[in-house]
Amino acid sequence: MIRKETICAPATSPGGAISVIRISGPDSFDICEKIFVPADKNLILKEQTGYKVVHGEIRDGKEVVDDVLVTIYKAPHSYTGEDSIEISCHGSSFIITRILELLIMKGVVSALPGEFTQRAFLNGKMDLSQAEAVADLVASETKAAHRIAMNQMRGGFSAEIVNLRSELLRFASLIELELDFGEEDVQFADRNELSSIITKVKDLADKLANSFSLGNAIKNGIPVTIVGKPNSGKSTLLNSLLNEERAIVSDIPGTTRDSIEDSIVINGLEYRFIDTAGLRDTSDVIESLGIRKTNEKIMQASVILMVDEISEPAEMINQRADYIRNMISGFEKKLVILVNKIDEGDQSTMDKLRQNIYLDNDDSLLFISAKTLTGLDKLRSKLGKILEKEPLTQGDVIITNVRHFEALKHVSESLERVIKGLAEHLPEDLLATDIRQAIHYLGEITGEITTDEILGNIFKNFCIGK
Amino acid sequence: MIRKETICAPATSPGGAISVIRISGPDSFDICEKIFVPADKNLILKEQTGYKVVHGEIRDGKEVVDDVLVTIYKAPHSYTGEDSIEISCHGSSFIITRILELLIMKGVVSALPGEFTQRAFLNGKMDLSQAEAVADLVASETKAAHRIAMNQMRGGFSAEIVNLRSELLRFASLIELELDFGEEDVQFADRNELSSIITKVKDLADKLANSFSLGNAIKNGIPVTIVGKPNSGKSTLLNSLLNEERAIVSDIPGTTRDSIEDSIVINGLEYRFIDTAGLRDTSDVIESLGIRKTNEKIMQASVILMVDEISEPAEMINQRADYIRNMISGFEKKLVILVNKIDEGDQSTMDKLRQNIYLDNDDSLLFISAKTLTGLDKLRSKLGKILEKEPLTQGDVIITNVRHFEALKHVSESLERVIKGLAEHLPEDLLATDIRQAIHYLGEITGEITTDEILGNIFKNFCIGK
Repeated sequence: MIRKETICAPATSPGGAISVIRISGPDSFDICEKIFVPADKNLILKEQTGYKVVHGEIRDGKEVVDDVLVTIYKAPHSYTGEDSIEISCHGSSFIITRILELLIMKGVVSALPGEFTQRAFLNGKMDLSQAEAVADLVASETKAAHRIAMNQMRGGFSAEIVNLRSELLRFASLIELELDFGEEDVQFADRNELSSIITKVKDLADKLANSFSLGNAIKNGIPVTIVGKPNSGKSTLLNSLLNEERAIVSDIPGTTRDSIEDSIVINGLEYRFIDTAGLRDTSDVIESLGIRKTNEKIMQASVILMVDEISEPAEMINQRADYIRNMISGFEKKLVILVNKIDEGDQSTMDKLRQNIYLDNDDSLLFISAKTLTGLDKLRSKLGKILEKEPLTQGDVIITNVRHFEALKHVSESLERVIKGLAEHLPEDLLATDIRQAIHYLGEITGEITTDEILGNIFKNFCIGK
Repeated sequence: MIRKETICAPATSPGGAISVIRISGPDSFDICEKIFVPADKNLILKEQTGYKVVHGEIRDGKEVVDDVLVTIYKAPHSYTGEDSIEISCHGSSFIITRILELLIMKGVVSALPGEFTQRAFLNGKMDLSQAEAVADLVASETKAAHRIAMNQMRGGFSAEIVNLRSELLRFASLIELELDFGEEDVQFADRNELSSIITKVKDLADKLANSFSLGNAIKNGIPVTIVGKPNSGKSTLLNSLLNEERAIVSDIPGTTRDSIEDSIVINGLEYRFIDTAGLRDTSDVIESLGIRKTNEKIMQASVILMVDEISEPAEMINQRADYIRNMISGFEKKLVILVNKIDEGDQSTMDKLRQNIYLDNDDSLLFISAKTLTGLDKLRSKLGKILEKEPLTQGDVIITNVRHFEALKHVSESLERVIKGLAEHLPEDLLATDIRQAIHYLGEITGEITTDEILGNIFKNFCIGK
């Protein structure tokens, strides 16, 4: 399944001032030599040292295709670990296509999605979880997502996994040694020590697996839903929050927070509003979607913003809040009750509502005016503290990848069986099998154990040129 | 108006596997040193040789923002002619924004559109028409547009202008010398030689100015309009041509001919269909736009495709063709009469029509079936030959820029006055004024003469990072 050919792909999006084409593989220099004429005619690409830039022209026969800079990377000191070249050309899609066509005519093949990173993994430049972090890093949109991906790419997560795995490997070997001795009934592995190590590893695996819900929230954003009766001001609230966001987002020329709609960022975490289709108008649309749709939105969210008006009686608000509380009971969801339109009410009404609105432990109650923006800063700060029980510190290892989550769950289950087996004095071969299984799943995370299928699934989601 | 600060901008579009940030100016190295930690800790950026790549990390204090490659260019051996750095980072818009923010915090300023190329011009790395060609090159979508932009960027056009100008300068000096001698009535400049030089320069200026209509067609595409009575098959024709085009366009992964709609490329030239809004449906829409709209479409086009059916009498076809011929008489426009639906007719009908349809010198007549695609290859080939009288050869200098066209027109007018003045033995000071004017306008093209306004107008249309 693994190709050895020299591959090429555009590494940048079309449309900028410059574009970069990546080439990697054994024939990189020989093939580039055929289409690249250096400004210094006597220069030979493959004789250059690595990390060197050469100025010259890409030519198709006598015709000049572009004036380019070529950067040389020599194996193993390149991203892929192979001989590699980057061609930096003018950012015209016509020129990029011409250069790629020329390369392909001379024998280079088009790279598959993620093939450069896959080669980096296969050549030992990074392990599998680090390779996965590259894609996460490219996709990161917030400070927290960026930090986790960066930590993972730099091997923070891998180091933990490799530690757990080597502890297990030691015991697996000892137990298998006992098996070799067969009838002699020797014990090389101290059962108490083994039990405490297994428990320690299982606890760590569980802790990592449990970090997934936070990691997933960081990577994919925290789903927030806005519910409430018609005309309570849901759409005004959404628009006010999004407009504030637009004012906050950095306006450095040439950069945009592209493709993010209906989301706001607080403390580096993204809060995604779910299914706002009916809320996009400034005129408060009557919620024609019906109760089933609202229930779905509540169940998809981690945070439910329930909007009510200051003119509403406390009993009605309590009744609606109870309905939601019943639905989300037992789930990791937070309810925030928002009493809106306080610009249309007075202090005594607010005081009365505050006294009479019932709150469960985790619920919050805020008085706001979406129209005059009053109280929206408090709402932002409240949202920012939703995940406060699990604060993010620089060193924390947090998993964001469902593949890692599943592998860790398998590890935990296998070790659970070992712990039980030890307590019940099960025979060594059964213990060894379960320990080997845990070792196998840990190895899958870093790629020490891997299959074409696992690799295929991981890299097919990469972009071309990565 | 000219800033001396160190500038930065993203040089690639967001969304690719990697992104490049450009920095240029006197403090490039010192400022990068503050946010970049090389993998080799002892390495100092400004001590490196140019055209060198350094691996390391961008850091905000202790936090790692990204693992990057930094390329060093030392003045004057850089695009701008200044000390420059390119940071190649992961293609995340979050990371790009963070790095730009860090640079700006350390004292770099955001680059204006085209500011890198403007600095290259001001530092003598290229003249003005070459700088303009950079933008054309980035925008080039076809082989011909690409070739002209490349030729212009490499100085082909500038060389012609500089030659014309130096010939004129020599004579201007001689004539001004005569003026210095005042009453003495000496003639340093041979009037016959002057006359022949002026005529030669004027002819060249005219030839260049005349190439503008071709150059403009190459740069902006050749406008084609499809007219004809309802149900003649105009929309089927358009769709067939566009579908053929889609099959032709290269499908190298990761590249697209983006943003081109309703156009086809033949022999490297783009043919743009005008105002096809009513033709986009496969069902032939009745031309409800009225005669005025059709007349407008005819006058905007360089090529008019008049579609008729095989069942139509020759007199009717002649009548319609005459109407168009009258409109376009005296303009550089070509009429192509298309008899469509030949799959519904027989050979004798075709022969009869061929005999009876009247053609003017430049008109063409083709029998096609837009539905079965019969004859569309001939139509493509016919369109490809429309500009054949002025074939494009590698060395030809063709102007594509309206600013150059206008300057050349001024040159021609000034020299016309000189020729007339010579014939009428006008005094030297009048001749000298007109020659100086021609010299001025030639200088405007290459930027030897320039103003902030001219520069502002040119570079404001560049993209950021170029």
